[in-house]
Amino acid sequence: MSLLLEIPLFLLIALYSYLEAFIKLFIPVKRKSVTGEIVLITGAGHGLGRAMAYEFAKHRSRLVLWDINKVKEEIGDVSILMNNAGVIAPTDLLSTEDCEIQKMFEVNILAHYWTSKAFLPTMMRNNRGHVVTVASAGGHIVAPFLVTYCSTKFAAVGFHKALTQELITLKKNGVQTSCICPMFINSGFVKNPSSRLMPPLEPEEVAKKVMEGILANKRMIFVPPLLKVSVMLDRFLPARAVAALWRLNELKFDAVVGYKDKEK
Amino acid sequence: MSLLLEIPLFLLIALYSYLEAFIKLFIPVKRKSVTGEIVLITGAGHGLGRAMAYEFAKHRSRLVLWDINKVKEEIGDVSILMNNAGVIAPTDLLSTEDCEIQKMFEVNILAHYWTSKAFLPTMMRNNRGHVVTVASAGGHIVAPFLVTYCSTKFAAVGFHKALTQELITLKKNGVQTSCICPMFINSGFVKNPSSRLMPPLEPEEVAKKVMEGILANKRMIFVPPLLKVSVMLDRFLPARAVAALWRLNELKFDAVVGYKDKEK
Repeated sequence: MSLLLEIPLFLLIALYSYLEAFIKLFIPVKRKSVTGEIVLITGAGHGLGRAMAYEFAKHRSRLVLWDINKVKEEIGDVSILMNNAGVIAPTDLLSTEDCEIQKMFEVNILAHYWTSKAFLPTMMRNNRGHVVTVASAGGHIVAPFLVTYCSTKFAAVGFHKALTQELITLKKNGVQTSCICPMFINSGFVKNPSSRLMPPLEPEEVAKKVMEGILANKRMIFVPPLLKVSVMLDRFLPARAVAALWRLNELKFDAVVGYKDKEK
Repeated sequence: MSLLLEIPLFLLIALYSYLEAFIKLFIPVKRKSVTGEIVLITGAGHGLGRAMAYEFAKHRSRLVLWDINKVKEEIGDVSILMNNAGVIAPTDLLSTEDCEIQKMFEVNILAHYWTSKAFLPTMMRNNRGHVVTVASAGGHIVAPFLVTYCSTKFAAVGFHKALTQELITLKKNGVQTSCICPMFINSGFVKNPSSRLMPPLEPEEVAKKVMEGILANKRMIFVPPLLKVSVMLDRFLPARAVAALWRLNELKFDAVVGYKDKEK
């Protein structure tokens, strides 16, 4: 087809998608059922993973919980697979041990990648399933002193976006994708975070919001939803203004697990 | 300071930065000299890295060229450090060998991370230097069938942005950062790429544009500059319209180095 025909066609598709999105604003979102569905959660031993396990347990899903740390207690109908690869800490570029970024990539990206790779062929064959990638606000907005953490979370967002595009291209519309991007959560990963503009979240409240998003097949789940505005602002503000915003926000957190105390 | 005072202050900083950026549009950009400067280039054996080495050689920089592949020939005043860790190929999620994403992260992220980590302390002590991160259009816009490639390039963009923010926060304004984001380059990495909307680039023309950006201390260098518009469009268009744009663009490339033929 010639470009002269295809460009108006593309514009029609874009317009149609916008209209559809606008109309959907006024239609109550249909939530799917996850009762009896097999749900595999990586990092299920603590923080958000653990809270998500509780949420799915409430929906009577069949849970498979994985964690590199010890899964502290069983939750409902649970089978637990564990291995102990140690604890990972978010650290800044200059104080990070060489092996830590490697470990961080392994936990934040490779573990998720390998898990997806194991289950995607079956999902695609059945044209049914849902891949949920856990990223972070740090996958969109960078934070100073969290260089390695942000790199891995950017990678998680890229993974989700490229996978989504690939599934659309292959017309596997039955395989859903979601990307979870919460602000700082008060879990074991970062201890006692505090900030002036957005108070840190508890894993349980994040899990509730995330569950709503997953059941509605939402692609990008920001918690709190206001975060979406911050991401937009971050794209348009000059770097100096972003730095001023960071100073103003006074983000602080205590020692991260297994790592020396620091205040940022 | 109270938020009531700080928010207007932040708005002033933002306004000042915008004004400064606007005024700078009309002032010829001052280019720094790199004559006699030590320039370390990773991936200098082929493609963009090699073309960049030639550009810096023209400016009479002192070059240190690294590559995991064999560096094919010496360029000017060159000391070469090599090791042979094999060749990496961009591949889609479902056909990638398990070890390949690991290798890809090692080449695209970890190598750059470790290099930066080795030289940043000295740069920061002297408040002088320039860290150039080689990302890609794929670090902003996702391409189907390049899931692992895009993940690593998103990580590279995240690394650059977080490092930039960290240096600003630490007031190390003498240490510059640039992130290079070219469209598909006709180099060994992807063979014979073709697309309808943006013709593939030759390494030499990208290197020239990149050099201009580096000498002007530009933070994000898109090649071609039009790419910036595509990135903006990609953020605002719905996923379905983005997929239509991909189909319309008819991006194709032959076998990537060391990998089976595919057409996308």
